[in-house]
Amino acid sequence: MPDDSFHVFDTTLRDGAQREGVTLTIADKLAIAKLLDEFGVGFIEGGWPGANPKDTEFFQRASQELPLKHAQLTAFGATRRAGVRAADDPQVAALRDSGAPVVTLVAKSDVRHVEQALRTTPEENLEMVADTISHLRESGQRVFLDCEHFFDGYRYDPEYAVSVVRTAADAGVDVVVLCDTNGGMLPADITAVIAELRERTDVRLGMHAQDDSGCAVANTLAAVDAGATHVQCTANGYGERVGNANLFTVVGDLALKYGRDILPDDCLREATRVSLAIAEIVNIAPATHQPYVGISAFAHKAGLHASAIKVDPDLYQHTDPTLVGNDMRMLVSDMAGRASIELKAKELGLDLGDDREAVGRVVDRVKSLEQAGYSFEAADASLELLLREELGRQVRYFETESWRVIAERSPTDAGAARPALFTSQESEAVSEATVKLYVKGERVIATAEGNGPVNALDRALRSAVEGVYTALASLSLTDYKVRILEGGTGTGAITRILVTFSDGRSEWTTVGVGENVIDASWIALEQAVSYGLLMQGYPAP
Amino acid sequence: MPDDSFHVFDTTLRDGAQREGVTLTIADKLAIAKLLDEFGVGFIEGGWPGANPKDTEFFQRASQELPLKHAQLTAFGATRRAGVRAADDPQVAALRDSGAPVVTLVAKSDVRHVEQALRTTPEENLEMVADTISHLRESGQRVFLDCEHFFDGYRYDPEYAVSVVRTAADAGVDVVVLCDTNGGMLPADITAVIAELRERTDVRLGMHAQDDSGCAVANTLAAVDAGATHVQCTANGYGERVGNANLFTVVGDLALKYGRDILPDDCLREATRVSLAIAEIVNIAPATHQPYVGISAFAHKAGLHASAIKVDPDLYQHTDPTLVGNDMRMLVSDMAGRASIELKAKELGLDLGDDREAVGRVVDRVKSLEQAGYSFEAADASLELLLREELGRQVRYFETESWRVIAERSPTDAGAARPALFTSQESEAVSEATVKLYVKGERVIATAEGNGPVNALDRALRSAVEGVYTALASLSLTDYKVRILEGGTGTGAITRILVTFSDGRSEWTTVGVGENVIDASWIALEQAVSYGLLMQGYPAP
Repeated sequence: MPDDSFHVFDTTLRDGAQREGVTLTIADKLAIAKLLDEFGVGFIEGGWPGANPKDTEFFQRASQELPLKHAQLTAFGATRRAGVRAADDPQVAALRDSGAPVVTLVAKSDVRHVEQALRTTPEENLEMVADTISHLRESGQRVFLDCEHFFDGYRYDPEYAVSVVRTAADAGVDVVVLCDTNGGMLPADITAVIAELRERTDVRLGMHAQDDSGCAVANTLAAVDAGATHVQCTANGYGERVGNANLFTVVGDLALKYGRDILPDDCLREATRVSLAIAEIVNIAPATHQPYVGISAFAHKAGLHASAIKVDPDLYQHTDPTLVGNDMRMLVSDMAGRASIELKAKELGLDLGDDREAVGRVVDRVKSLEQAGYSFEAADASLELLLREELGRQVRYFETESWRVIAERSPTDAGAARPALFTSQESEAVSEATVKLYVKGERVIATAEGNGPVNALDRALRSAVEGVYTALASLSLTDYKVRILEGGTGTGAITRILVTFSDGRSEWTTVGVGENVIDASWIALEQAVSYGLLMQGYPAP
Repeated sequence: MPDDSFHVFDTTLRDGAQREGVTLTIADKLAIAKLLDEFGVGFIEGGWPGANPKDTEFFQRASQELPLKHAQLTAFGATRRAGVRAADDPQVAALRDSGAPVVTLVAKSDVRHVEQALRTTPEENLEMVADTISHLRESGQRVFLDCEHFFDGYRYDPEYAVSVVRTAADAGVDVVVLCDTNGGMLPADITAVIAELRERTDVRLGMHAQDDSGCAVANTLAAVDAGATHVQCTANGYGERVGNANLFTVVGDLALKYGRDILPDDCLREATRVSLAIAEIVNIAPATHQPYVGISAFAHKAGLHASAIKVDPDLYQHTDPTLVGNDMRMLVSDMAGRASIELKAKELGLDLGDDREAVGRVVDRVKSLEQAGYSFEAADASLELLLREELGRQVRYFETESWRVIAERSPTDAGAARPALFTSQESEAVSEATVKLYVKGERVIATAEGNGPVNALDRALRSAVEGVYTALASLSLTDYKVRILEGGTGTGAITRILVTFSDGRSEWTTVGVGENVIDASWIALEQAVSYGLLMQGYPAP
């Protein structure tokens, strides 16, 4: 059970939001904060109230709508403006009045930034640090200080950088966080600088690393080795430019390799779930190759690795994936061998018996389909259907005769205003699909509308099949991915479609390949619906 | 100019190919090898001839079709089988006869793997190492030895691990590569182990790091600090599970921060181009947030960062992006401020004059469009059209009256064989689009076919416009991305479409958003074609 002796400080909502492509609503922020709290972080930096109106509102709503179990909410902001008293600075007031029990102030500790970016004197900057910290402490808040550009600043003018740290310590700051803001430091630099700093002050130290040199995690660990007891991270390493130190990697390393007790009991197992959930909210495809929590982190491809893992998973894994809520996965690809197929069938709950010939057929079929552009690694449902077919247990609930889909936008009324660049005209666009199938021997025609051709086809298909298989109503198409592959023989590009369905309890993904995008989508849809019927327990006719 | 004193050893084609989702043809491998050579690596590990038929062919073709300027081709393979002489082992023969001047052998150095995975004795394993190395050296090849699981093995039984290294050294191996095969080591572990090993042997050492603990790059640098002069990496960090040490990050750090002369002159500038080109061949979306070469690596978002960068880019960049062939980019988002817009306009070559009001309008319009789901960060062409419109220089070459697209698959002939699970029926699927536009006051109707609805719409649109603007023929749609966004007000999901066009010389990307996928695609297509006409130099009517 952790106490205040080690701080896991998350800044996903503030620094993480500075990642290219991320735009967070207040609802997003509240949802992410709840997840971070479930993961057991000690501090959640919620944003910059006062400077960012969305953040001001976030802190207001958080006090009502965000019951935190483990974490303390932290407001981020700058030291007071030059020449104004902290007590008179409205931005400082916004921090003070945010309702957050902790404030993280950012101060310049690189004298060049003081002069060129802030346009003030080194002495006034120190005053700004002391004044703002004192003011907030008098108001009853706990204060951490982010020393922006600390390592670059220390390199340029070590005396000044140290004076900023000491000024903060004298003013009663709780933690001085050394920031490698430009991300240019390597672990040896961190070690050396903190060792020297330790000779000059015994204030509590923290680390904030950026990943521009690919060493954010290592730099954070180096700081901990050198005595830091406060680490700043972001979920999935989101952040400005390359990003920040990844929360799940840093915590995984500290908990599992350093053996440090830094999260509340059982929180580490939430890592994978929280990582994926945050990626979904932030609307960024999950980084499949992240340490610990990535979907590929414990996925084994090489045939030889699979053979060894059959003997003992630890032969090729550095830790037990379930400790971080992840799973071991066997990948079936053109590198697959019999061991991979056997382990995969086991993973999917299919009994291969001792049918070595069937396993060989599956291996060959997978390799040839992969040559054609299929990729089963992300489409377990398709792989399962293939395995079942090769084992003589195929799943064929319906047969397609034909399909047709139309999408159109009709003309607006004469005299309608000239449309703006980014909005469509007054009239709506409509997509409609008609499918003709045989279900249990009967010919069925169904038509449906949708928000696009694939959505319309999906609805028409399910509408056609639902008449006979009534439990289909609970299915929904939740994701759709298009990848354009180069045609190897010059016949033109082929497309690979991945379709994900959900029935409210579980999700499954299927794959289709073809020269025509809609046709490839149809192949994936057919399988996805068949798989859905299989999951519902309908016997194959 | 580098010599043999430091090895930049790339294993993209062998270890990198073990990344989930990667399938390489021989043509892919040859193309990637050429790019790696252009980047100036010293060694290219091409694959496992003998064990993998594709690789055997790769080495044969490489001797004819791959004139290497900087790199030496390396064959990878295992030590001889237990109980068989190296001279009699066909797999060893395949390495010997591959035509590669260098062979990298992988040997077990963890005694548990010797016993459980290889099922042989520790002594025989040492014989296998000595015998295979000697045999290949007698045949005139240079040999490196990958000590698989070295660090785990050293932890378990240091004497045995060291004996493997010494045996290899005595047999005349050039480099002993210490592999953190399971990726569980942290930099301090690497430093400690290599320091101890250095006391026991002075054979040349190399490092092969996996990224399971998020420290592959740092572990590689730690090894170099401890005396290693051979680093194994993969392009973009591709590899088994989480991946390997990223070639561009390791080389960037060693060249730019250690000041080491490890690439031929001017090769470092090829980094970004080579990184992207390899991602394209491998058909993996480029990792936008990679250090040095990622498209986001020098992209600045926070308004305050933009203001400082206006003064001096070095205030927020750890190095000069052009040294690695990358660029600084200003991101325009809801965090954008005036400085971001001004710098962006400058980047796009647009003169804002001193129109502060226009800048303000652009900032507001961008923020509100981003709230609606637009994302301009990846769509510079759309942003430029918006800027031009706000500056009164709008670009409107045509006006859309209506469009319609149909896709269908007709029924097969009666009696056709029951179709297999992953292939479509005999009949082809067809997509056809009809658009009705006004171009220079005249109403034009055009119909075209395509391999999908968007492709068909694109062709119909261009067909309609080409009659008047004849230079459009050189345009082609090269990429199409769909992202399904959650509707914030419960009206259903909205889709964001990014469309990329090329005219053979440059590429541009536009964005469209809407509830209907095809409609959102149309918005992006309209802009992309307009932008194409702008690039061709047609004056706006």
